[in-house]
Amino acid sequence: MVDVEEKKMHMGVGRGMADPEGGIRDRSFMEGEDNIVDGLREPLLLKRRLSNTSSQIAVIGANTCPIESLDYETIENDVLNQDWRSRNRIQIFQYVFCKWTLALLIGLATGVVGFLNNLAVENIAGFKLLLVSNLMLSDRYYQAFLALAGCNLVLGTSAAAICAYIAPAAAGSGIPEVKAYLNGVDAHSILAPTTLFVKIFGSIGGVSAGFMLGKEGPMVHTGACIANLLGQGGSRKYHLTWRWLRFFKNDRDRRDLITCGAAAGVAAAFRAPVGGVLFALEEAASWWRSALLWRTFFTTAMVAVVLRALIGYCRSGYCGLFGEGGLIMFDVSKMVTTYSTPDLIVVLVLGIIGGLLGALYNFLLDRILRVYSVINEKGAPSKILMTATISFLTTCLAFSLPWMVRCKPCPANITEECPTIGRSGNFKSFQCPEGHYNDLASLLLNTNEDAIRNLFSGGTESDFQLSTLFIFFIAVYCLGLLTYGIAVPSGLFIPVILAGASCGRIVGTLMGSIGDLHPGLFALLGSAAFLGGTMRMTVSVCVILLELTNDLIMLPLVMLLLLISKTIADCFNKGVYDQIVTMKGLPYMESHPEPYMRNLVTGDIISGPLVTFSGIEKVGTILHGLKLTGHNGFPVIDEADPFTDSADFVGLVLRSHLLMVLKCKNFRRDNTVPTMASSENLLREYVASDFEKAGSGKGLKIEDLNINDDEMEMYVDLHPVTNKTPYTVMETMSVAKAAMLLRELGLRHMCVVPKTPGKPPVIGILTRHDFMPEHICGRFPNIENLHN
Amino acid sequence: MVDVEEKKMHMGVGRGMADPEGGIRDRSFMEGEDNIVDGLREPLLLKRRLSNTSSQIAVIGANTCPIESLDYETIENDVLNQDWRSRNRIQIFQYVFCKWTLALLIGLATGVVGFLNNLAVENIAGFKLLLVSNLMLSDRYYQAFLALAGCNLVLGTSAAAICAYIAPAAAGSGIPEVKAYLNGVDAHSILAPTTLFVKIFGSIGGVSAGFMLGKEGPMVHTGACIANLLGQGGSRKYHLTWRWLRFFKNDRDRRDLITCGAAAGVAAAFRAPVGGVLFALEEAASWWRSALLWRTFFTTAMVAVVLRALIGYCRSGYCGLFGEGGLIMFDVSKMVTTYSTPDLIVVLVLGIIGGLLGALYNFLLDRILRVYSVINEKGAPSKILMTATISFLTTCLAFSLPWMVRCKPCPANITEECPTIGRSGNFKSFQCPEGHYNDLASLLLNTNEDAIRNLFSGGTESDFQLSTLFIFFIAVYCLGLLTYGIAVPSGLFIPVILAGASCGRIVGTLMGSIGDLHPGLFALLGSAAFLGGTMRMTVSVCVILLELTNDLIMLPLVMLLLLISKTIADCFNKGVYDQIVTMKGLPYMESHPEPYMRNLVTGDIISGPLVTFSGIEKVGTILHGLKLTGHNGFPVIDEADPFTDSADFVGLVLRSHLLMVLKCKNFRRDNTVPTMASSENLLREYVASDFEKAGSGKGLKIEDLNINDDEMEMYVDLHPVTNKTPYTVMETMSVAKAAMLLRELGLRHMCVVPKTPGKPPVIGILTRHDFMPEHICGRFPNIENLHN
Repeated sequence: MVDVEEKKMHMGVGRGMADPEGGIRDRSFMEGEDNIVDGLREPLLLKRRLSNTSSQIAVIGANTCPIESLDYETIENDVLNQDWRSRNRIQIFQYVFCKWTLALLIGLATGVVGFLNNLAVENIAGFKLLLVSNLMLSDRYYQAFLALAGCNLVLGTSAAAICAYIAPAAAGSGIPEVKAYLNGVDAHSILAPTTLFVKIFGSIGGVSAGFMLGKEGPMVHTGACIANLLGQGGSRKYHLTWRWLRFFKNDRDRRDLITCGAAAGVAAAFRAPVGGVLFALEEAASWWRSALLWRTFFTTAMVAVVLRALIGYCRSGYCGLFGEGGLIMFDVSKMVTTYSTPDLIVVLVLGIIGGLLGALYNFLLDRILRVYSVINEKGAPSKILMTATISFLTTCLAFSLPWMVRCKPCPANITEECPTIGRSGNFKSFQCPEGHYNDLASLLLNTNEDAIRNLFSGGTESDFQLSTLFIFFIAVYCLGLLTYGIAVPSGLFIPVILAGASCGRIVGTLMGSIGDLHPGLFALLGSAAFLGGTMRMTVSVCVILLELTNDLIMLPLVMLLLLISKTIADCFNKGVYDQIVTMKGLPYMESHPEPYMRNLVTGDIISGPLVTFSGIEKVGTILHGLKLTGHNGFPVIDEADPFTDSADFVGLVLRSHLLMVLKCKNFRRDNTVPTMASSENLLREYVASDFEKAGSGKGLKIEDLNINDDEMEMYVDLHPVTNKTPYTVMETMSVAKAAMLLRELGLRHMCVVPKTPGKPPVIGILTRHDFMPEHICGRFPNIENLHN
Repeated sequence: MVDVEEKKMHMGVGRGMADPEGGIRDRSFMEGEDNIVDGLREPLLLKRRLSNTSSQIAVIGANTCPIESLDYETIENDVLNQDWRSRNRIQIFQYVFCKWTLALLIGLATGVVGFLNNLAVENIAGFKLLLVSNLMLSDRYYQAFLALAGCNLVLGTSAAAICAYIAPAAAGSGIPEVKAYLNGVDAHSILAPTTLFVKIFGSIGGVSAGFMLGKEGPMVHTGACIANLLGQGGSRKYHLTWRWLRFFKNDRDRRDLITCGAAAGVAAAFRAPVGGVLFALEEAASWWRSALLWRTFFTTAMVAVVLRALIGYCRSGYCGLFGEGGLIMFDVSKMVTTYSTPDLIVVLVLGIIGGLLGALYNFLLDRILRVYSVINEKGAPSKILMTATISFLTTCLAFSLPWMVRCKPCPANITEECPTIGRSGNFKSFQCPEGHYNDLASLLLNTNEDAIRNLFSGGTESDFQLSTLFIFFIAVYCLGLLTYGIAVPSGLFIPVILAGASCGRIVGTLMGSIGDLHPGLFALLGSAAFLGGTMRMTVSVCVILLELTNDLIMLPLVMLLLLISKTIADCFNKGVYDQIVTMKGLPYMESHPEPYMRNLVTGDIISGPLVTFSGIEKVGTILHGLKLTGHNGFPVIDEADPFTDSADFVGLVLRSHLLMVLKCKNFRRDNTVPTMASSENLLREYVASDFEKAGSGKGLKIEDLNINDDEMEMYVDLHPVTNKTPYTVMETMSVAKAAMLLRELGLRHMCVVPKTPGKPPVIGILTRHDFMPEHICGRFPNIENLHN
């Protein structure tokens, strides 16, 4: 056990250390400290107040975006309580009605966006491939290559350009950021309307440009952005607002909406409504309850209905040349689906391969992303240049590799056209003579979804040569790794599924003779193994694959595979989304505290000086306190009673509420305790809706205030806006238990109160940053080893 | 708002009131008070200590079973902390290994039990029906009736007898109790080995006896019992123990295991592994995290593998006459599965009917159960008599109703035998002449699962007359309601699915002409509508139905139906399981607090006198305190410092730990503060494993202690066993926020601390009972109306 002396020693050492997060905060505070102490008239009082602190906005990691924590606590201050009590039944009904209407709208909007996205990709990529195909047929190979490279370059760089210049947050998958948001971390502009715009069009450009990336991750992000946009009642900046949707001015309701949005995104991307719900549950959400399951389910059902209707409409031929396909939906029903014991051995092998290669994928991706982040930091032009390079590399590989395999004669007894002229189908002619086809070209010179369909589809026992599959697997695995970090919205599902499917077919071809399974089923199993190995999702991947292939008989095999591959991969590293969350420096709270946290008490980890205010505080002091720190919560303490010398802890006041109070200017000349009547009058001066949480980035800023020197000397009563019932822990509470409290209740601030009387009533505030393992291990370098 | 004066007034009134829960507790306390005050030498001190209380064991509702709360808090006392710190890597690995081994074992055991259960039912019911069928064929109608009635009576009453005499807790579905357990309420012997035994054999008897009940609910309960048995390392009472499984001596780990068990039960009952996971998640569990999802999934995958293997074995003909069927699995794949807009109208109608009739079902069930509970309270013989009555009624209906419909000629072009001689099949001869069959007999004189299969199955457009369906629907609906309350393990799924399927077929027959859907699909949709209307589950029902029918095309229709029926039914009452939980008086904590709880503060709802102990307390005082109350947690307060007059709140000590301390007898003669060295010596005297939570009903009892008069006068140091970091709330915290804390962290006790100094350091303890709406509304009768 760390006894008290040892702890104190550690703390002393820890304070002096450069810790990766606290460093920036502490420094900025230290710079400001002198000015403030000079600027204030009560240095003695302030010194006591500044005795301990912890910061809520911090600049972390390589992305240098401000990160804001979300607060799921019910703020119970007099102003909001009064408003809440005055709500009548009609308003409560309106609230419930709006909740469901929003779920409906999110479902409809995400469904439509998912459909249009798909339609655009199918048409753009289709025309591109048709052009190349026609040029190849007339043997103009160089022109074909130039056409392909040119199209890809234009599409890719334009996607990168809008992404780099308009919304850098739209790059990448978006799932890690959504996951972090649902955990309580709002990265800057991650759900902004511009991000939504760039995510949709960037994704269309990126997928059409033939990159080895998918639209599934971006669809999840798109769904979350749509939910955020609708939940905030539109965007005030772009004059898109609906007054009747402005019921959701708190983080709890927004979190629920964004959960629905993420589920809708998966449902739209895979046409898998149940899979969408499970994805939101397993991977995205950190808090969950039965009522939310029900609402999420409603949203994804709406997505399914919209997609069905729109695809039905497109079947009538209104959707351009290539609009018939719809979203990925692979039919494996024609294949034999009985399996025997020898097949289990193959499944075991596939599971091990999937787990190992999946873990390797995560490892390599992490390294590559770290290299890329250095390049990306150099600015937009270098981002675009890198995208262009990867685009050119992809084109070169797609065009050069098919020359390496030999042409295959078309099978005799097939109903399909061979070679396929145009876009889809298993039989691409490429450079082959008549009556022959190039099977690698069928995979590489196709949209990724068609490649998956080809690999999964039944009735193609001998369609792919082993060499083809091998080359394709290597190409997909490497391109997938190189592509993810570029400044284009890029999903990880498709590259992983493609790599898994080709790997599965390889294993199936090599070992298939010992069992009865079809190579197409091996492709499905391989995808499951790779998804389990990289993303570490289980139930949702299982259900998504079931919904994609419409076959339940494979369920036990898929479950077994996922179990094996996930277990093996878990021995090496974390899931790919968790890895990206960590790499981006987002302070994600895990559901279980680290073991060593039981050896520390909260008193050990409170850091920095604490800024507190009096119940009736001087305006100047508040303003200075706000300027001095980036804190978002300040304890309010009523002055010490001269007789008992015990100060009274009133509660916690939020930065946004302080700013609003200063803006309202209900100041007074003296700092005497107000009468009951004057308190009630004061309460009437405040409008509750001003104190509701504004959308991200829309809150009042300190620069918006206009306070003259005279007002600086006046006093303001903070009692009406102080949350009188913050959650508190004693300083002797173990960090592990405090972390549970913060995580389970979704708190932003937690007040640490002293165990023994005689100290100030609050000795510190803890936020999620204080619980980050990096932070704690930075301060107590030996804490991890102490345990064993 | 309730202001302070009004609250005080209410509290005064509340105290005097007879409240349904507190009543019993308060009375028992009041009776004891005088003796104690006489028996103790410090009446003055005690008076202060007894100033406030709340009870943790209470006798509630009609079932008069003791209910114990579970505690998911990490107990951090010196003894357990010391043990925890001494754990090495090998022990941590053992723990993880055991966790997964247990999940595996639960899966295997539940799979095997589910299979054997099914096999037994198929064989017993099969032989019974074969006997009746043969007697009917030789026109011996009376003998046939007597044989059927006799078999049913013997099977039914023996099931009721073992249930009534051995384990009354095994009656009913068991899902409400499992749900309550996972919420933190342990009803007496609900997961005991005897309950498991009776649940398995009672369920076999009940289902074979032809009652209108299913084995699905009992399977969930069985799975939970198996998980509990394995998690406790076997049963000490029956000498079934495994030492290496004794790692799970806390409520958190047990809760996880039982969640796995419940999921395994559903998976085994429906052969739906994903549905099982979702059921556990949506309906059963109150707490959830991603890691648990993964473990639950593993368990259900094991169930699926075991079932597959056993059914494969049975296909070879080793399982008796009727062992080929396996679990319910309906194949609708032969039917047309396109649907058009007119079908949506039928779906809408079905949804409305399902919602209305589902809500009515819940309402009637509640009334009937209340009547039955009066009968059941009269003792085992009356339970058996009631079961016999219902059995006779069921037999009469099953035998008499088929006479009401006219015989149908066998269809010409079918591959099946008609009329079917033997057990299964759509065509029962009953009283009909050769070449004809009785379609109602095919439904009624069959196992319930075969009836469902008949209703769902494709290719039977004209198999059921409208009159048949109508009679069957009425019979099923009424019998289902009458049967559930009898003293036999009885599931609700099957009656609801049957009623829904027949209702769906009726609607399909009446309105089917406007769309293209097949009557068999209408049966499926009808079942979904009824399940949504009674159980109010959405995603899990959806997935279970998908897994049963192996068809994903119907998914959007099923989702839509569930949405409609659940929404409509939610307007009238709660889901059937929630209703039963409420009726049984189990203190279930909802995930969201009631709105009026925001108008109360925790100081208002603390009730009864509080019993506290000193850090170094007299043995006699502890013993009296334990005898005096049923409390399970006692605050420990160090005596007031003579100079500052402020007592120090040490923490909370559990009843079980106090009993163990008294048993260990590390007593001392004086009550001076011990030195550091003597404290450490004392710590070595205690064995940590003694302080781990024993299995339900196995803990040390006050009667087990043997303390003589001399020892009564001695002192014992409670510091080593006191949980020094209980979660605390201030007395000004709103009840709503305190309820969130209790619910989200799964606490058993929550200490209420005063806001202002000068009061005792703890002014009360809150438990889940204090947050029950009945309790609060009993004390503040107008609180609900106050809001609006």
